[in-house]
Amino acid sequence: MYQHAIQLRVRYGETDQMGYVYYGNYASYYEVARVEALRNLGMSYRKLEESGIMMPVLENHSYYHQPVHYDDLLTIKVLLNDMPSVKITFGYEFRNENEALVHSGKTVLAFMKANTKRPCRPPETMMKLLKPYFS
Amino acid sequence: MYQHAIQLRVRYGETDQMGYVYYGNYASYYEVARVEALRNLGMSYRKLEESGIMMPVLENHSYYHQPVHYDDLLTIKVLLNDMPSVKITFGYEFRNENEALVHSGKTVLAFMKANTKRPCRPPETMMKLLKPYFS
Amino acid sequence: MYQHAIQLRVRYGETDQMGYVYYGNYASYYEVARVEALRNLGMSYRKLEESGIMMPVLENHSYYHQPVHYDDLLTIKVLLNDMPSVKITFGYEFRNENEALVHSGKTVLAFMKANTKRPCRPPETMMKLLKPYFS
Amino acid sequence: MYQHAIQLRVRYGETDQMGYVYYGNYASYYEVARVEALRNLGMSYRKLEESGIMMPVLENHSYYHQPVHYDDLLTIKVLLNDMPSVKITFGYEFRNENEALVHSGKTVLAFMKANTKRPCRPPETMMKLLKPYFS
Repeated sequence: MYQHAIQLRVRYGETDQMGYVYYGNYASYYEVARVEALRNLGMSYRKLEESGIMMPVLENHSYYHQPVHYDDLLTIKVLLNDMPSVKITFGYEFRNENEALVHSGKTVLAFMKANTKRPCRPPETMMKLLKPYFS
Repeated sequence: MYQHAIQLRVRYGETDQMGYVYYGNYASYYEVARVEALRNLGMSYRKLEESGIMMPVLENHSYYHQPVHYDDLLTIKVLLNDMPSVKITFGYEFRNENEALVHSGKTVLAFMKANTKRPCRPPETMMKLLKPYFS
Repeated sequence: MYQHAIQLRVRYGETDQMGYVYYGNYASYYEVARVEALRNLGMSYRKLEESGIMMPVLENHSYYHQPVHYDDLLTIKVLLNDMPSVKITFGYEFRNENEALVHSGKTVLAFMKANTKRPCRPPETMMKLLKPYFS
Repeated sequence: MYQHAIQLRVRYGETDQMGYVYYGNYASYYEVARVEALRNLGMSYRKLEESGIMMPVLENHSYYHQPVHYDDLLTIKVLLNDMPSVKITFGYEFRNENEALVHSGKTVLAFMKANTKRPCRPPETMMKLLKPYFS
């Protein structure tokens, strides 16, 4: 298993008039968290795209346990429980400054060749970087 | 069962550099669709909030079947398969101009009193308006 | 002068915890309004891009006269006061259901060839469609 | 004069299909930058709101000098050139990793009492914290 945590502060524009983070904005937090998890592993998602591989999202699942407020400093843990195949699944756990689990989620992404728009296997470099965490 | 369909055109700012609608923006489309579904039934979500009842989201699930592009005119069907209890579940089906099913989703919301932040039953008016569709 | 008005309803996710439309979301409304103004003229911005011409934004100016709320139905008037040159300037006036002027704005865009990323003149079809309004 | 710089990385969802940061997303970057500039001074915008003072935006001006891309690490300098009165004006300068000035902007905000929605003077604590920078 590979995991990595980041910290992220809630922006004003991400709240709604209920005074909580708008439910549609968590997907953007997931994206930041998984890109940083890859960067920490030694992979740049930007370079991955430049090399001709895209990772479109197939599924997204969100569970809102407790409201999150403006200016909250969140700790987001990204979990990779399995080696990627043609798909990769990221899990997320959000905790606030009181260490309460306020939110969790899961995203399933595919690997796709940008030119053909066809599914493909994960890049070798990703497999090599992940292997040590799954043996 | 109650269902209602709306049309919605994709905005430029809702795409990302992959050239598709960003996966986090569908939640906002769901919100528009379910609010219009309620309005068509005779209920204003705005007035519901003004009357002291909020509907925070508990769960959200999204399935991305086909990419959706800038300027696409989507038909979004909202489905209410069950009478609400302390929770209400909305389903969504997105079709593009070729009638292809490009996306589907599901949102579970709670009913909550704004002043106490405690869960509550759905308002009587909503139950009355929905009853004819579930008998 | 060419002008065109659209109607647009404020989404929940576009508000912030102040209970107003977040100030950063007006730019997205401008985009919807100017794209529809072009469509009404007989031009598709999507087809313009597909033909290899992009319109990046150079400047944007926003004036917030009165707060705008969730579910407000806005009338947005787009104004084109001058024939485009290498730049085009769109003006906007927002009115709420009481016809109060709640917001105004202005965006300056360039014409650019997608392949060379160099500025270019506006497409001939646009000039032809606009000419009748400026003579 | 008071100034403060922050770093901010562009999120994927903040780009559009042109491959640049969507022009409407800079306002959100301004907000992050000015809130951190206040925090660095010793003021929390969150606490300001909790104390009953809001800062609605009156005007916003943006100048797009060069495109900004996904994953760019921006340095955003916030400039306060004048002591606030009933209004406060923040300036912004964005530089990319090559130190090129890619964007600049300016936001004018008011001070307003949350309960009466009437304009008010800036809080005493803000004036005290700022005074040393303007003498």
